[in-house]
Amino acid sequence: MWFIPSSQGRRINLELTAHEFVIRAPVMQASLLQSSGIKKPFTEVIKANIGDAHAMGQRPITFLRQVVALCTYPNLLDSPSFPEDAKKRAKRILQGCGGNSLGSYTSSQGINCIREDVASYIERRDGGVPADPDNIYLTTGASDGISAILKILISGWGKSRTGVMIHIPQYPLYSAAISELDAIQVNYYLDEENCWALNVDELRRALNEARAYCNPKVLCVINPGNPTGQVQSRKCIEDVIHFAWEEKLFLLADEVYQDNVYSEGCQFHSFKKILYEMGPEYYNNVELASFHSTSKGYMGECGYRGGYMEVINLHPEIKGQLVKLLSVRLCPPVSGQAAMDIVVNPPVPGEESYAQFIKEKESVLNNLAKKAKLTEDMFSKIPGIHCNPLQGAMYAFPRIFIPSKAIEEAKAHKMAPDMFYCMKLLEETGICVVPGSGFGQREGTYHFRMTILPPVEKLKILLEKIKDFHIKFLEKYA
Amino acid sequence: MWFIPSSQGRRINLELTAHEFVIRAPVMQASLLQSSGIKKPFTEVIKANIGDAHAMGQRPITFLRQVVALCTYPNLLDSPSFPEDAKKRAKRILQGCGGNSLGSYTSSQGINCIREDVASYIERRDGGVPADPDNIYLTTGASDGISAILKILISGWGKSRTGVMIHIPQYPLYSAAISELDAIQVNYYLDEENCWALNVDELRRALNEARAYCNPKVLCVINPGNPTGQVQSRKCIEDVIHFAWEEKLFLLADEVYQDNVYSEGCQFHSFKKILYEMGPEYYNNVELASFHSTSKGYMGECGYRGGYMEVINLHPEIKGQLVKLLSVRLCPPVSGQAAMDIVVNPPVPGEESYAQFIKEKESVLNNLAKKAKLTEDMFSKIPGIHCNPLQGAMYAFPRIFIPSKAIEEAKAHKMAPDMFYCMKLLEETGICVVPGSGFGQREGTYHFRMTILPPVEKLKILLEKIKDFHIKFLEKYA
Repeated sequence: MWFIPSSQGRRINLELTAHEFVIRAPVMQASLLQSSGIKKPFTEVIKANIGDAHAMGQRPITFLRQVVALCTYPNLLDSPSFPEDAKKRAKRILQGCGGNSLGSYTSSQGINCIREDVASYIERRDGGVPADPDNIYLTTGASDGISAILKILISGWGKSRTGVMIHIPQYPLYSAAISELDAIQVNYYLDEENCWALNVDELRRALNEARAYCNPKVLCVINPGNPTGQVQSRKCIEDVIHFAWEEKLFLLADEVYQDNVYSEGCQFHSFKKILYEMGPEYYNNVELASFHSTSKGYMGECGYRGGYMEVINLHPEIKGQLVKLLSVRLCPPVSGQAAMDIVVNPPVPGEESYAQFIKEKESVLNNLAKKAKLTEDMFSKIPGIHCNPLQGAMYAFPRIFIPSKAIEEAKAHKMAPDMFYCMKLLEETGICVVPGSGFGQREGTYHFRMTILPPVEKLKILLEKIKDFHIKFLEKYA
Repeated sequence: MWFIPSSQGRRINLELTAHEFVIRAPVMQASLLQSSGIKKPFTEVIKANIGDAHAMGQRPITFLRQVVALCTYPNLLDSPSFPEDAKKRAKRILQGCGGNSLGSYTSSQGINCIREDVASYIERRDGGVPADPDNIYLTTGASDGISAILKILISGWGKSRTGVMIHIPQYPLYSAAISELDAIQVNYYLDEENCWALNVDELRRALNEARAYCNPKVLCVINPGNPTGQVQSRKCIEDVIHFAWEEKLFLLADEVYQDNVYSEGCQFHSFKKILYEMGPEYYNNVELASFHSTSKGYMGECGYRGGYMEVINLHPEIKGQLVKLLSVRLCPPVSGQAAMDIVVNPPVPGEESYAQFIKEKESVLNNLAKKAKLTEDMFSKIPGIHCNPLQGAMYAFPRIFIPSKAIEEAKAHKMAPDMFYCMKLLEETGICVVPGSGFGQREGTYHFRMTILPPVEKLKILLEKIKDFHIKFLEKYA
């Protein structure tokens, strides 16, 4: 081995691309614990660290899997055990594939008929706001689209280096991509006291400060929020769009949780729709990229790596560069494209599979809503924990009080205090959650992110265990 | 639209990432032609430009699709129409998935049991040379692995900028990745007079010249060759390994065509095996990454984006960076991982599906061998075309004589002469091939790449048409 990597001159800053490390480190630690042979005070590791629905026992939506299976093995098109509506969709997808096979490359942008279905879905979702299949790019999960568009938008060096505004707490894909591309991460803080709302004054503060050292050009928003679970109001989205218009910022709207809204009075509004409704001055000028995915919602099909991106007002030159860039990875996985088709083109009333589909979909979403409420209620009863309402997405991001004695002990272990807390939680209860420091948080505050994906009964036990742990933790370090 | 991209200060050089543009431009042109309404002298466009087997009518291997369908829709595990050996494999793969679902994320490196199967495959292939699943990374097609390892290996600026040696003619993924990473492409030329052999003197010339302006650290080899179809001899591979050892170069062996060897007396030797057989001084020191894919061979499953990379002697720090980098894309598509499993773990004698599997596999490979011979023979009969034997892979890369009058006309159209030739071929015959200038060629020589994937009867017609076109072309520009 002579290829000793020199940190000096490295092109990509990998120190910070700790995306999955942040999120998965607890699980690795858990495996170590399990295999160590040391007697543990728990019998099972519960992985509440990552939004991986099926791994937590959620069942796939039957119709989606039927269609993908039919596409995979078209002999099944003759089988009486598959419904006609699934066969119809599978045939249509296969007709869009070279040689009618999922094994052919597709165009880099994705199969035409699926992009058409995505456009129709967006039009239905947005009450008729037009969507153009030419503006749709099928992607390898949403993360592929986000990385690609950031790659295209980022340029310059020194003070003209592109700044990318992201909210804190953030989802580590963003910090990882920004760091890998050597752009400048410009933080704006969500308002925890106000249910993690996005405040335009704070956006303006962050922008003005950043202009002293970089060229902020991109504004990222996740709605519903990850890790914070807030659902943005119509007014808030209008304010953000107006701000982006005023400041000529490219808007990146991560809307992968668009189906995950639980709280009474909350509703998902797409940035595209609001942009349109704000009138032509906005709609003809503001540049927007919006992302969706097969991984979240009620499908939870993370492993298929399916997704799409819709772009609005993208400069033709940028568009050309995007296509070139995407062409290097040849095409998104075709079975993921097929899965995406079913997300946007599920059974409709009158079709054979409609009843079962709706039953399954509602079961998943009602369950998630129930678990969101359960989590919120349980946390509100634990002294030293404050948790905002879980309006959407699939995580709780409670604020935890960590006594100063514990903070000192963490420092002695060279750990962030919330990392110390999470490691203790893991060691004593087998529960994996992610420390807030992995997402960013206001100085002196501590949080963790946990998913609400475990089955209800397991989630109850998990929350009880966290409660007991937390009370003991407070006592120990009082 | 106000986000006008400034070429100045762009981070990624997209001018050269014309990977798919090079390869797909002819098809786009063909579509334009077809939709133009202008009367064309042909009835059908034949896409011989890209190695997309299923799009050319090759049928999927039944067993592979059965296993992936069973994994997709596990209800089928109860179906009597699926063989037991397929069910056994599907169950094993599902046991490796969180919640027994293809819809869960896997580890960034890929599912454990599939990496174990890959390691066993490599051991069988290489006559017992040990392979460690920890050195196997499942990837999103081979291109994902190649891009990732290059990203990790490239560093430095100015004269210490990493140089990556690639053979000319090359596969445009390499030039695109090198350009995107802002590394230095160091060309070495394959010896066309000697059946595109790789000559170490030429490697040395290229390396020594490059050392004046960069730091060459990586040596890329494609075997069997793309676009040139040569199969490297054992001696040649030994020489290359010795050279890499001597010069401390990281070896990147693209072996995705390892199952595609046709010529009598030719045999695939993996770099890993030869490295091992050269003894511990080599085996303990030379750094190697080797790539394989579901897309080529006899499977041709391009759309699944399945692949793996095996690394040898990778520095632990580099390995850590690689895992971090791969973690940003979360995991390779899980259905692609399942497909890769069947590539390395197909039916064995005694299993129910063995006979059909072997029949299908041999049918594809025998057909490809027949088409390789047919293509070689036909080209050898055309005056002004010289074609080396197609020893392996799935392309012909004939050298074409272009009269000086045609070269002048091409220049008047601001086109490379071989691009001009290929466009004329397309316009007059409907046949899409890729000009040699997209792959690189010695100054003053002209080539094109065509796949041998069309069905035999269609390939015969295609070759006849090329012959007629070429003779007319020579006459016209004589």
